[in-house]
Amino acid sequence: MKVEGAWRRTIERDGHAVRVLDQAKLPYAVEWLRLVTLADCARAIRDMHVRGAPLIGVTAAYGVAIALAEGTPLDEAIRLLAATRPTAINLRWALERMRGANDAFAEADRIAEEDVALCGAIGEHGLPLVKGAAKTGRARVLTHCNAGWLATVDWGTALAPIYKAHEAGVDVHVWVDETRPRNQGLLTAWELAQHGVPHTVIADNAGGHLMQKGEVDLCLVGTDRTTRSGDVCNKIGTYLKALAAHDNGVPFYAAVPSPSIDWTLDDGAAIPIEERSGDEVRFIAGREVVPPGIPVANPAFDVTPRRLVTGLVTERGVAPATADGLRVLFPEHAR
Amino acid sequence: MKVEGAWRRTIERDGHAVRVLDQAKLPYAVEWLRLVTLADCARAIRDMHVRGAPLIGVTAAYGVAIALAEGTPLDEAIRLLAATRPTAINLRWALERMRGANDAFAEADRIAEEDVALCGAIGEHGLPLVKGAAKTGRARVLTHCNAGWLATVDWGTALAPIYKAHEAGVDVHVWVDETRPRNQGLLTAWELAQHGVPHTVIADNAGGHLMQKGEVDLCLVGTDRTTRSGDVCNKIGTYLKALAAHDNGVPFYAAVPSPSIDWTLDDGAAIPIEERSGDEVRFIAGREVVPPGIPVANPAFDVTPRRLVTGLVTERGVAPATADGLRVLFPEHAR
Repeated sequence: MKVEGAWRRTIERDGHAVRVLDQAKLPYAVEWLRLVTLADCARAIRDMHVRGAPLIGVTAAYGVAIALAEGTPLDEAIRLLAATRPTAINLRWALERMRGANDAFAEADRIAEEDVALCGAIGEHGLPLVKGAAKTGRARVLTHCNAGWLATVDWGTALAPIYKAHEAGVDVHVWVDETRPRNQGLLTAWELAQHGVPHTVIADNAGGHLMQKGEVDLCLVGTDRTTRSGDVCNKIGTYLKALAAHDNGVPFYAAVPSPSIDWTLDDGAAIPIEERSGDEVRFIAGREVVPPGIPVANPAFDVTPRRLVTGLVTERGVAPATADGLRVLFPEHAR
Repeated sequence: MKVEGAWRRTIERDGHAVRVLDQAKLPYAVEWLRLVTLADCARAIRDMHVRGAPLIGVTAAYGVAIALAEGTPLDEAIRLLAATRPTAINLRWALERMRGANDAFAEADRIAEEDVALCGAIGEHGLPLVKGAAKTGRARVLTHCNAGWLATVDWGTALAPIYKAHEAGVDVHVWVDETRPRNQGLLTAWELAQHGVPHTVIADNAGGHLMQKGEVDLCLVGTDRTTRSGDVCNKIGTYLKALAAHDNGVPFYAAVPSPSIDWTLDDGAAIPIEERSGDEVRFIAGREVVPPGIPVANPAFDVTPRRLVTGLVTERGVAPATADGLRVLFPEHAR
């Protein structure tokens, strides 16, 4: 997608290293980081210089390739990278794929290319949802966190249908949840602005009210892990928006590339929820907002039960958020 | 309640003026503002140096007294003060009371004293709810915004039962919603800390997850206006917590002193919702976090429909959130 007018990807191969857009600096500065060692890659994931389940997976794949090139044993590299973030299932999926690779850099390149293709397909399958939401002439879509191209290699997951709709001439406006504590909504606003998609940032508290007032036609979010039964784990606060959507008859879809599906889990309550540092609540844009001495807690994800999810937009089409729905599209994972 | 160890009120009479604790400075600094003119009072309300529906009402009452003392016509004073904040009904209630006063300062003093009594009674009536919530030995209460003594003259509304429980030796822990965009949760944390009540600040996004995990026994919030039928208008985001409480079987109560009840309205959807400056989203603790050029919206309140409200804690007891429930406690307002 476009960065300051030029087409770029969030992660770009550079010999036996990768260049990534430093998302810890956005939207305040556009800076690229070169990840040269396994330690660079692990740190970039842990400290969220790269983030978003699909991009975490791709970065970890390159991390394995870089580790092998520097002579680190495969198992050690995989162990280190797997420990960086506990919730996103793509990370484990990508590492398992790397385990079987002959040419590690070529396999990581393939994973990256596939991610672009998956996201593009999600965009095409989600496009009719956005078109259909434009009942008043304008599709007013609410999204939470950043599931845009910044969370992937290109296109994004939840934002892919929005970009496709915008390109197709549909009038789209995006309500962008700020997404405390890390304010990934600002990443979403930044990338939407780069592409000229109209949007408005709102406090996370505001979405329910907007739905009550009939100002939201569609909710579209990403996922860090979706169970085989359709429970959607995503950034903390997603569940609250799903409740509001359900209460107000607003369709609520998650964009789910298949590497985000955990085929081993039925119940979303079993997904490990990362508890991140309280400093993410305490500091905003480098400034200490919560005074020292006040205790804080910071669970990073929640699980939206499938009963609140209208459907899952996958690279193979839109499925009901049920085990049967996913089985029909992905029969190779039936058990 | 206690400020740095001494018992104070949020608003204190000082001759023909009042001293108020400057809530725009909290929790970073404890400073008192002297309001000497009608303009001082209006500005203090509009710019939220004082806030919280009950305290807004009391400040407006003193504003009328100060205006009359400086020779401003009553109607002009009332018009100016009524325009400062559109949602809190206490403001209108207090101004109407001042219209009929003989000795304006004495009447404002009475309104202030009555507020203390109302809040104390709410504390007593709500105490059994907190005690009853301590099923595991500890009552884990979630609150949104600040409905503590800072929002009133003393005691608070939603926090009054918590203070009473804490004084009665009940082990209470409060989950404090940060409450973006103005972070009134920090006011709540500050006043709880002054009183030694254990608490933890969380992002507004986190409460639903905590309820799913069984970590919340009770939700207690305040209100800026509650309809005669029991619809509760409160700080933006309250509705989302009520949805989560309902979805997880967590009791959800609003603390409602009767001056917060709008006896003229049945349907909460008719309550005017203040749209405040986008700068409240854009700037956090004085720092510009949302870059210029990114559009923002900032609705300040939402309405929780009565079907999601377990009960209303009033100064006369706990009522079901229904017209009948309120009518039984306040027969003088039956129509």
